[in-house]
Amino acid sequence: MTDSKISPLHKGLGPLDHAATPGEIAALGWNLLREDLSLPVAVLYQDKLNHNLRWMRQFVDAYGMKLAPHGKTTMAPRLFKMQLDSGAWGITLATAHQTRVAHHHGVRRVLMANQLVGKQNMAIIAALLDDPDFDFCCLVDSADQIDQLASYFRTAGKRLQVLIELGPDGGRTGVRNADQLEAVLAALDRSRDTLSLAGVELFEGVLDDEAQIRHLLDRSVTLTRDLLQQDRFDRKPGILTGAGSAWYDVVADVFSAAQFGEAVEIILRPGCYLTHDAGSYRRAQERILTHNPIAQRMHSGLIPALHVWAYVQSIPEADKAIVSLGKRDAAFDSGLPIPALHYRPGTTAPIPAPSLWTLTRMMDQHAFLQVSPGDDIRTGDMIGFDISHPCLTFDKWRCIPILDADYCVVDIVETFF
Amino acid sequence: MTDSKISPLHKGLGPLDHAATPGEIAALGWNLLREDLSLPVAVLYQDKLNHNLRWMRQFVDAYGMKLAPHGKTTMAPRLFKMQLDSGAWGITLATAHQTRVAHHHGVRRVLMANQLVGKQNMAIIAALLDDPDFDFCCLVDSADQIDQLASYFRTAGKRLQVLIELGPDGGRTGVRNADQLEAVLAALDRSRDTLSLAGVELFEGVLDDEAQIRHLLDRSVTLTRDLLQQDRFDRKPGILTGAGSAWYDVVADVFSAAQFGEAVEIILRPGCYLTHDAGSYRRAQERILTHNPIAQRMHSGLIPALHVWAYVQSIPEADKAIVSLGKRDAAFDSGLPIPALHYRPGTTAPIPAPSLWTLTRMMDQHAFLQVSPGDDIRTGDMIGFDISHPCLTFDKWRCIPILDADYCVVDIVETFF
Repeated sequence: MTDSKISPLHKGLGPLDHAATPGEIAALGWNLLREDLSLPVAVLYQDKLNHNLRWMRQFVDAYGMKLAPHGKTTMAPRLFKMQLDSGAWGITLATAHQTRVAHHHGVRRVLMANQLVGKQNMAIIAALLDDPDFDFCCLVDSADQIDQLASYFRTAGKRLQVLIELGPDGGRTGVRNADQLEAVLAALDRSRDTLSLAGVELFEGVLDDEAQIRHLLDRSVTLTRDLLQQDRFDRKPGILTGAGSAWYDVVADVFSAAQFGEAVEIILRPGCYLTHDAGSYRRAQERILTHNPIAQRMHSGLIPALHVWAYVQSIPEADKAIVSLGKRDAAFDSGLPIPALHYRPGTTAPIPAPSLWTLTRMMDQHAFLQVSPGDDIRTGDMIGFDISHPCLTFDKWRCIPILDADYCVVDIVETFF
Repeated sequence: MTDSKISPLHKGLGPLDHAATPGEIAALGWNLLREDLSLPVAVLYQDKLNHNLRWMRQFVDAYGMKLAPHGKTTMAPRLFKMQLDSGAWGITLATAHQTRVAHHHGVRRVLMANQLVGKQNMAIIAALLDDPDFDFCCLVDSADQIDQLASYFRTAGKRLQVLIELGPDGGRTGVRNADQLEAVLAALDRSRDTLSLAGVELFEGVLDDEAQIRHLLDRSVTLTRDLLQQDRFDRKPGILTGAGSAWYDVVADVFSAAQFGEAVEIILRPGCYLTHDAGSYRRAQERILTHNPIAQRMHSGLIPALHVWAYVQSIPEADKAIVSLGKRDAAFDSGLPIPALHYRPGTTAPIPAPSLWTLTRMMDQHAFLQVSPGDDIRTGDMIGFDISHPCLTFDKWRCIPILDADYCVVDIVETFF
């Protein structure tokens, strides 16, 4: 992977006269607590990232499965590289554009967990398939879509690997019933000259009831077994893949019980484990740590590795501070950011933010922080916020510094949304 | 302004082997309807942008006021240039980072409608003030903040222009009462060697009750009159500024009635008028067209100039289509995108989308479109969505093509969030 240069026009940087590589930036010795960075800034903590990488590797290895982390969460090729270096089988992505970005940065195996639709999107993938080392598959769930894919790739003279997606009634994409499945298999039959059936896919994260999730997983196991028996997979071993960031334990449980052995590679696709969060994924993780025997044996869990830091800019009422953090800077769709650390420039170290401090509202560039009258808070204080929903926080930042335990910038990741 | 080059790794582009200038891209002849672009894509319509530019210029001119469009909406220097070429007095921005981006692209007058807080943010502004042609002011609302500014800029040997911000109880930033105002004026008095008082500011958009808005506006008129009488403005004429995109008519009404004449420049700061929307700002505009005599005489209103186009990727249930449009692509905090146009590749032109088609849910990369069983909709169809809240749509895109009436790409704007 070649390092692209970080533009000095990105937000959240220190003083930079010209574009610089992550290595050049690390050498500048910027420190968050010395106010070397322009706030607001999103930061990643190196030790926590490494912990989460190890944790998920250990979990997946214990099940004998493969990991294709969903890269749409971060869209940061330097983080993709950390995940691949930590043993990931490939990177999962959601769009042709994202796939192009990953390939450009050296990723050579992409599971596009989505339907590929539209002439220019197909053209992007067809061009990437000129690279003989590029292993790519995407989803199909209707005869119409398969016919469109086959028509394009046949004309382009390229072979495309596809996975049949199953979906639940009331869900998102995916085959719902036997009639739809029959039509999909018929369309695949008439497209065998250009489309290869590589496996079966589902995304259980559209559901939030464990019984329904297990039912969907059972359907995918049954279909995989049927297709194996009929020798319908053009890829050996075939692929069976599921799992977002909330239910990967249940997916691992059901898929491992199926005992496909060497005939099937089982691939899990969580994306948010790398940074974790302090909202919806913390709650999901609590369930996993309580119920999953392998997670229990690991004696630790995932740790939030992403903070957004911002200044207190005004305290206009005794119980209200206004913070320079807005919808432009952090996710707000799954709970507002949560004050975690409080630092006054010039003091030795951040302290935990009082647990009563709460964001009550966010606007584009501001957040309303409820405090208690008399709390020790001043204009110019820095607050480090935990976030809920990493995906919609990452896409607010074009670069994100990685900090060591002393809040020094030791690396910087660029995003490509 | 020098054109920076558009990276081929941005989403929403056509085939591009290497970075290209907007002019080079316009010469490629990409057409949305020919599927030359990778969807989803956000597009701007040239004729509608021009209409909106003329409309707001005419409105502001009729009041004899100045326009400093809020640039945080688009963060697109090419659009800033269109606004300045259309007579804008300057550009309003929200942060030091945004100000740096604007200055880099040739903007030489910035009203930063926000408090400037933090060492590195002050350093960014201090560095820009090395440019003698750069006219900049920002807000103050507390003695603490003024003392921090004065300390930094005194040490830096720079003079900074500030506006006193007034705010309503229960609102965002801004001076609430006489005690706070007295403290602010005292702090400004002891900082006269380095801070210049340039005027008075408010943002009425935190309120949604017209009587309360008029009360806040009256407070700002009274303060401006008092400060004029005391000859407290270091800038001549002084500045009185307010107005977001929803209540600029009421602001214009109250400020013009104050009859400050040559002593005060009145500056309005709407940001969303340029693209308008089909949600909250359409509703605000309906009120303005009904009540404001100048808007009534113009016999037209603002027109939505921004669409996000996406493919139908799956129709898994008779009344549900899944569209390749997600929270990664359009604002969702003020109403979901609204299907406006429906186009089937190969047909002559888009047709209006059936009014019953409605988005019911958005995920990161997908939207759920409710249709009626039997509707003429197919996988691979393109849908053009109106959006609500341009600010949080723009920040999902690093570049946005501008289309002519034939859906040809005639220009492309880059954003700098």
